[in-house]
Amino acid sequence: MQKVFAMSFDPLSLKYNESGLIPCIAQEEDSGEVLMMAWMNADAVIKTLESRRVTYWSRSRQAFWIKGESSGHVQELVDLRVDCDRDCLLAVVRQTGAACHTNRRSCFYTAIRDGEEVELMQPMV
Amino acid sequence: MQKVFAMSFDPLSLKYNESGLIPCIAQEEDSGEVLMMAWMNADAVIKTLESRRVTYWSRSRQAFWIKGESSGHVQELVDLRVDCDRDCLLAVVRQTGAACHTNRRSCFYTAIRDGEEVELMQPMV
Repeated sequence: MQKVFAMSFDPLSLKYNESGLIPCIAQEEDSGEVLMMAWMNADAVIKTLESRRVTYWSRSRQAFWIKGESSGHVQELVDLRVDCDRDCLLAVVRQTGAACHTNRRSCFYTAIRDGEEVELMQPMV
Repeated sequence: MQKVFAMSFDPLSLKYNESGLIPCIAQEEDSGEVLMMAWMNADAVIKTLESRRVTYWSRSRQAFWIKGESSGHVQELVDLRVDCDRDCLLAVVRQTGAACHTNRRSCFYTAIRDGEEVELMQPMV
């Protein structure tokens, strides 16, 4: 890692879509497993950075979604990264329990193989 | 891996946004590194599965974007996964060269640390 430039980060410098949202991918720090993708608005980005608890914006509820607040399946923020176009975020996290609402570790538990859908993992017990 | 159910995969069964697009995360098979996120339409999903060369839909050019077609930095598809809500894809790939147009291995080369932006990787030589 090389610190080439440093600047005060401005959440409004990110590119949000027409609904004011930016996608955020959550990746488990140790395993590198991609856990889920959800959306943040600028305030959710700020809350995530300040609280170190990954906080999305729920499009269905139109409210902040502090991951794991009700389930206990929290995501502790390890590192928040921005892509080259500034229109996508990558949150490196320590995930407690299941990231998926189906109680699976990752939301990406279905693969398409030889034209069929194959289930790759079972719900956690 | 357990094959619990199998069905013929229908690309139209995915949930596309109002522009007919679905986000697709590309992850390097060996390292687990998250390389980039871009968009696919249903035809790009089909082309990706048939050709095993990851093919996005370029929103700026409004055309298929066969990753690496001009740069040689192709993404060979290893596995295509669907998330629980069927509104996000994860492509596990073998990436030749740089995934990022800045010639960095990954597009997520900037981290936000202590309120500042820090560059994590240099362009490949």
